[in-house]
Amino acid sequence: MKDNVYSLSLLQAYTTKVFSTIGCNAADAEIATNVLLSADLRGVDSHGIARLIGYVRLKESGRVNASPEIKIVHESPSTAVVDGDAGLGLVVAPHAMNIAIEKAKIAGTGWVSVRNSNHFGIAGIHAMMALPHDMIGIAMTNASALVAPTFSVERMLGTNPIAVAIPAGNQPAFVADMATTTAANGKLELLQRKNAATPDGWVQQADGSVSTDAHELKKGGALLPLGSDREHGSHKGYALGSIVDIFSAVLSGASYGPWAPPFPAYVPMPENMPGKGLGHFFGAMRIDAFQSAQDFKSNMDNWIERFRNATPAPGRERVLIPGDPEREMEIVRRSEGIPLHESVIAELNKLSEQLGIEPLDKFEA
Amino acid sequence: MKDNVYSLSLLQAYTTKVFSTIGCNAADAEIATNVLLSADLRGVDSHGIARLIGYVRLKESGRVNASPEIKIVHESPSTAVVDGDAGLGLVVAPHAMNIAIEKAKIAGTGWVSVRNSNHFGIAGIHAMMALPHDMIGIAMTNASALVAPTFSVERMLGTNPIAVAIPAGNQPAFVADMATTTAANGKLELLQRKNAATPDGWVQQADGSVSTDAHELKKGGALLPLGSDREHGSHKGYALGSIVDIFSAVLSGASYGPWAPPFPAYVPMPENMPGKGLGHFFGAMRIDAFQSAQDFKSNMDNWIERFRNATPAPGRERVLIPGDPEREMEIVRRSEGIPLHESVIAELNKLSEQLGIEPLDKFEA
Repeated sequence: MKDNVYSLSLLQAYTTKVFSTIGCNAADAEIATNVLLSADLRGVDSHGIARLIGYVRLKESGRVNASPEIKIVHESPSTAVVDGDAGLGLVVAPHAMNIAIEKAKIAGTGWVSVRNSNHFGIAGIHAMMALPHDMIGIAMTNASALVAPTFSVERMLGTNPIAVAIPAGNQPAFVADMATTTAANGKLELLQRKNAATPDGWVQQADGSVSTDAHELKKGGALLPLGSDREHGSHKGYALGSIVDIFSAVLSGASYGPWAPPFPAYVPMPENMPGKGLGHFFGAMRIDAFQSAQDFKSNMDNWIERFRNATPAPGRERVLIPGDPEREMEIVRRSEGIPLHESVIAELNKLSEQLGIEPLDKFEA
Repeated sequence: MKDNVYSLSLLQAYTTKVFSTIGCNAADAEIATNVLLSADLRGVDSHGIARLIGYVRLKESGRVNASPEIKIVHESPSTAVVDGDAGLGLVVAPHAMNIAIEKAKIAGTGWVSVRNSNHFGIAGIHAMMALPHDMIGIAMTNASALVAPTFSVERMLGTNPIAVAIPAGNQPAFVADMATTTAANGKLELLQRKNAATPDGWVQQADGSVSTDAHELKKGGALLPLGSDREHGSHKGYALGSIVDIFSAVLSGASYGPWAPPFPAYVPMPENMPGKGLGHFFGAMRIDAFQSAQDFKSNMDNWIERFRNATPAPGRERVLIPGDPEREMEIVRRSEGIPLHESVIAELNKLSEQLGIEPLDKFEA
């Protein structure tokens, strides 16, 4: 099993073609492509082009609408609920985040809860849309239930990520983007490919007992909330995942908790869904609605420099600021290209054949 | 070492007297008392009357102003920065949360960042102020640095709690209130009294190596962020604690990170503080700025019932909803009284003597 390396521009051309072929208009195909490939650029390989085929299958199954009419269904000066019309989350999310930013320009902050959407790629890229406006950006989403609450054997929550992007001055922005579980599902997938065990505290068996089997989810097991077990604060990870679920789905009228629609198109939809599609939640806070953006950013520089220079533990090179690893990866991959696992390439070539488009290798940058 | 049990009304009379004696006006003394004792009622004994003497010492040292002029120094339709004028956090916080609620009535949401304040008791009680208004409440605060970021041996962050209160219909509200560390400092104090060891993953030694010594903080060690170590997601707990620090202190102009002022009055203030006092952050989101409050609350009832009925793991009685243990404790303590550890009673009696007021036992309910 080897990786092959592709340039960003080649993957952009290919991915845009795929989205156009399934019915997206040119603008939406470009937006969806940029969001999807931002994951590959930032090193979150599980959420990038490896999932392209998953989105196509959702379109084929009728669960995704390639030409959605995304609209505001309720609003106040600082809030809105957006109905995504079953569009690609990759398109619905930037649309909704833009509404949050526009609200913040006038009201100081903007908060948008979204229903009737689908998976939106990595949360961080949506939160980061606020940065050029000197705003703090927030993004979260619910997802299909893979996580057992503390004391439960039932899977009730998704990995429900929270992303917060905070602008700085001379320093790069602070960008946190985290699943509310001990380990994201993507980390499990990496171990599955290597047939390796997980550390303790990542998953549990179907009966709730401890496990280090990376294939545990296929056997009815569950991911564990951040904190792993009660003694180490898993009730906090469970609460965080619940807050994401409620802000994203209960507040918008999407389907919540164990009723969140699954990503794989072959998994049947839950019965008695209480709302429409997946839900997201976005926030934008204009810095100068609180204080001078200039002063804030210079204090953020001071904050970041002080934390980056905290004394590292023996054997550790340095203390990281949230967003450092992804930003550094993006610099490398923009110049050296994006490595794709050969199983991903094979899948994409099958997809090309099915859609009647050129295979990956034939695309020009 | 034994506990003695006191009625809420007796502790209220006593605590109000103490706050009046150090210079609070009647209204502020009552507010501070209610916030402080809500911790004892809800079972968070570390943050209640056991800390009363700490607040008095802060007043004596000149770090707390008993008659503050709390004011808005910057605002937009949905935001404000409040200067607490070095007042008790127990008084400044409800004041600021009320501003958030008033903003939300008009703009849909209200967000208030506070500088120049002091410790505000438990975060949850401030978030819960939103509930009777059919709003979601959010409260957070920074605190003196006891927590080492992932890969660091330096203490850079406080236990920086996040509280979120969400109204329901027939079900009790969802109330999460959590330190962003694996274990709150209060849990460590309980173990110290018993001379017991901590579980692994709560603290580290001054050189960063693992420890189960509940006295580790006194030896230069540190609390660990939620997740405990990198493999179990401590970088997420570190990011959450950082977000609380930035929203509460950088956004308001309070003192952040390792410069946050210490709670014990005998600990010298950090040098070169970049801002004024401690910082808090409050949010209020009006439900009907998103959708019908009636529909939302009925979906919250459905959410809560479904999660409460999730299949428990063998040996576990039931799955809890955030806020359940505290609410159940409050019912017991309102009717049966509040147990105080004899060391706390002894301290309060010394305090009475010093302030020239009756000892605890002499107070009438």
